[in-house]
Amino acid sequence: MALSTQPYKGARDFYPEDKRLQKWLFSKWREVCESFGYEEYDAPILEPTDLYLSKGNEEIIAEQTYTFEDRGGRSVTIRTEMTPSVSRMVAGRRQELAYPLRWYSFPNLWRYERPQRGRQREFWQPNVDIFGVAGLEADQEIIQVADAILQSFGAKREFYEIKINSRALMDKIVADYLHLDKTQGETLIRLIDRMHKLERSEFIGLLDGVFSPSQRDEGYVEKLLNFLQATALTEIPVELLELEATQNLARLLELLKANEITNAVYDPTLMRGFDYYTDIVFEVFDTSPENNRAMMGGGRYDGLIASFGVEPVPTVGFAWGDAPFVNFLEVHKLLPELKPETEVYVILVGDVFERAQGAIKELREMGVKVAVDISGRKPDKQLKTALKKDIPYVIFIGEKELEEEQFKLKNLTLGTEEQHSLQRIVSIIKDHRHQSSAKV
Amino acid sequence: MALSTQPYKGARDFYPEDKRLQKWLFSKWREVCESFGYEEYDAPILEPTDLYLSKGNEEIIAEQTYTFEDRGGRSVTIRTEMTPSVSRMVAGRRQELAYPLRWYSFPNLWRYERPQRGRQREFWQPNVDIFGVAGLEADQEIIQVADAILQSFGAKREFYEIKINSRALMDKIVADYLHLDKTQGETLIRLIDRMHKLERSEFIGLLDGVFSPSQRDEGYVEKLLNFLQATALTEIPVELLELEATQNLARLLELLKANEITNAVYDPTLMRGFDYYTDIVFEVFDTSPENNRAMMGGGRYDGLIASFGVEPVPTVGFAWGDAPFVNFLEVHKLLPELKPETEVYVILVGDVFERAQGAIKELREMGVKVAVDISGRKPDKQLKTALKKDIPYVIFIGEKELEEEQFKLKNLTLGTEEQHSLQRIVSIIKDHRHQSSAKV
Repeated sequence: MALSTQPYKGARDFYPEDKRLQKWLFSKWREVCESFGYEEYDAPILEPTDLYLSKGNEEIIAEQTYTFEDRGGRSVTIRTEMTPSVSRMVAGRRQELAYPLRWYSFPNLWRYERPQRGRQREFWQPNVDIFGVAGLEADQEIIQVADAILQSFGAKREFYEIKINSRALMDKIVADYLHLDKTQGETLIRLIDRMHKLERSEFIGLLDGVFSPSQRDEGYVEKLLNFLQATALTEIPVELLELEATQNLARLLELLKANEITNAVYDPTLMRGFDYYTDIVFEVFDTSPENNRAMMGGGRYDGLIASFGVEPVPTVGFAWGDAPFVNFLEVHKLLPELKPETEVYVILVGDVFERAQGAIKELREMGVKVAVDISGRKPDKQLKTALKKDIPYVIFIGEKELEEEQFKLKNLTLGTEEQHSLQRIVSIIKDHRHQSSAKV
Repeated sequence: MALSTQPYKGARDFYPEDKRLQKWLFSKWREVCESFGYEEYDAPILEPTDLYLSKGNEEIIAEQTYTFEDRGGRSVTIRTEMTPSVSRMVAGRRQELAYPLRWYSFPNLWRYERPQRGRQREFWQPNVDIFGVAGLEADQEIIQVADAILQSFGAKREFYEIKINSRALMDKIVADYLHLDKTQGETLIRLIDRMHKLERSEFIGLLDGVFSPSQRDEGYVEKLLNFLQATALTEIPVELLELEATQNLARLLELLKANEITNAVYDPTLMRGFDYYTDIVFEVFDTSPENNRAMMGGGRYDGLIASFGVEPVPTVGFAWGDAPFVNFLEVHKLLPELKPETEVYVILVGDVFERAQGAIKELREMGVKVAVDISGRKPDKQLKTALKKDIPYVIFIGEKELEEEQFKLKNLTLGTEEQHSLQRIVSIIKDHRHQSSAKV
C-alpha cells in the first residue's frame, strides 16, 4: 500500500510559501529583540521529564505532553514551553553569566491536544526573557519589547490591548482580604483563569464551592466579585491601594504611559495559567472581535531558577503564540504579499547548458539569486515555469546571446523585454530588489 | 532534591555564543542556496513511524530511532533524516509544484546512539534537493552547490575532496559482472559501505562469505577486489567502460572539471548507507588527517517519491553534518571570532532611568542595537558587565549629559573616550559595524 503524504496529525508542513512567512516574522521579531540587546539561544526539543514535574501547568503535564521512555529507560518529554529549559540553562551557568542577561529564542513546542483552527499540536512560541533585575524597570522593558514588536509590524494602538495584573496582589487578596488557605487560593486562581470561558452563573456556582459556608456568610464571595469588576486601579477597594503590590502596578502603568504605551490596562481577572509567576503578569489581546484572544503573555517568575539548587535570579519574560499573531496580522491587514527569494530565472535556448555556465556564474558572483531551467524543455515551457514560480525576471541565454554578450531580460510583472549586458541586467535587478524591500 | 541543570544526554544547549555560530553558518549556507534559486521549507519533527519503514537504513530504524506511541495510540518517530519527509511533501503536491523544484532546509534530527565527539543524539543536517530533472545537469548542480558553500567559507581545493560513485554502475557489476543475486548484492553493498572501518583481512574474510563456493572458484572475489582498487575511471576493467552508468560518471566528472571543481574524484568503494539511492552518489571528505571523514553526502534517488503512490519524480539531493563541518572549519582555521549583536551598552549614572528613555529610544530608532543596564548598580560595576559581555561601545547617560545633549562614548576595544551628540555616536557605531562585517 502507498504511504500517506499527510503530515502527522496536528503538525504542519512548511512549503516554501509558508516558510517564507515564518522567516519574515522571525526576522522582524529578531530585529526588535536585538535592538533591545537581546541575544538568541536555543535548547534541545527533548528534555528529561523531571524538568516539567512540579512546575508549570498541571493540566498540560498530566494530559498534554509527549512523554516516553528512551531506549535507555530514561523518561523524556518533548518541550511544551520554553521557560523550564531556559531556567535550567541560566541555573547551569548561574555564576558565569553577566546580568542583566537578555535572551530570546524561537522554539517549536508540542502539546497533545485536539487540533483546531489556530491550535496545532506543534506550534512556535518566540520567548523573550530578562534575568537578574528585581526592579520594575525589567517588567517595563519586557512589555516595551512586546509593544515594539507589534509596532514594527505596523500595528496601531487600537488594534490591541495590554492587560496587566499582579499575582503578588492576588496572593495578598487571597490571604489577607478573603482569608482563604493555600489550597483554596490555588483553586480560586485556576477558576478565575478560566472565568472568561464560563457562563457567569456557572462561574458563580463554582466560586461558591471554593469558599466555606462561614466564609460565604461573611460576604467574601461578593467582596471578590466586586473586586474582579474593577477596570482601573482607582476602582479597587481603598484598603488595597496602599499595598506594595498595588503601588508597583500603578507605577508600571505610569512608566508605560510615559513611553507612549497608552493601551495598557489593569485587569484583575488576568491570572496566566502557570504556577511559577510571582508578581506582574500580562497578556496582549487582539481587540478585533474576529480574533479576540491573547496573542502573547508573560510576567515575572522570580523563583524558578532557584529550583535548580542555585541562588534565585529575578526574571521577567514573555512568549508569543505564532498562530494567534498571524491571525492578528491577517485581521488587521498587516500581512504583505511575500515574493520568492529567487530574482532571475534563466531560460536556456538550445543546447547551451555547458557554454552558459560562465554567464550564470558571473550573475551569481555579482550577487543575484539565479535559478536555471535545466529541464531541457522548449523555451515557452520554461517561461511558464518561471511565471508559476512567481519569479520577477527571466533571462534568455542562447548561442547568439553568448556570442554577442547581450541578453534578453524579460520583466514578468510588466511583460516588458530589453536587451542588455550582464552588468546592466544585474543593476536593474538590484534596483528592483531595493524598491521591493522598501515596500515591505 | 534540586533539579539537574544538564540537558538530556547527547543533546546540546545553545548558549548565545553557540547559537551565534549556528546562525552564522546557516546564514552563509542560506545565501549560497538562494543564489542558486533554492527555497527554504520545513516539516514537523514528529512523523508517522510508517514513513521510515521499508526505506532508508535498516540499522537506524531498528536501533537508533526515537519511536513511541502518542496518547491516541499512533506510532510516531522523531525524524532521523529529512529525505523521507521532503519526499512525502513533494508527493503530496506532485501535480501543483513547478519543476525543476529547488528546496533546502535546516532540520534538527535525532538518533539514539552513544554520544561521542562530533556525534550527538541531536544534530543538524542542512538538506538541499532538486526535483524533476532526470539529466546529469541536476547531479552537477547539486555538487556545484555543495562546492560553492565550501568556497564561500574560504575553503581551498586541497582542504577537501569530492568522492563520486554510481550505484547504477554498482548494480550492473553485481548482476552482470559478478553474477550475484539480489540478496547477495544487498549484503555486498552494505559490506563495501563498511570496508573502511574494517581491517583488510577482516573485509576479505567477510567478502568470501558473500560469494558461493563456485563463484569463489571462478575468481569473482579477486575480480571485485581488483575493481575496487581503481582510483580513476581509466583503471576499471575495459568491459565496464561502455556501460551507460560509466559514461554518465565520466561526463559528470568532466562537467565538474569544466566548472573548476578539480577536486572531484571517482571512488568505486563509496556506497552511501541508504537503500534509496539509484545512481550517482557522492561524499565530501575533509583531507585533513585530524578530521578525516565525510562532511556531507548525497546522490540521486529517483524512486522514493513514487512510494507515495504518485508518478515518480527524479531527485538529487545532499545533506551536511553540522558537527563535521564545524570541525572542518576549525581544523583549517576558517572560523572567525564572532561578536555579540549588541553594539552599545548604556550605563545610567544616577537616578535617570525615566528621563533617559527618550535618548535610548532615539538610538534604537536610528538603527543601533542598544542594551541598557537597568540594574541600578554603580557605573563601574555596569562597565564591568559591558566588558564581560564583549560589547564594543558604552554610552554614559547622566543628568548633565541629558541636559547638554552630549554623551560620553567609550570604545571598549581601544579604551578611548569621546564626547558627542547622539547622531554622531550613531554614525561612529555604524562605521564600526560595516568595518567588522567586511572582515568576516
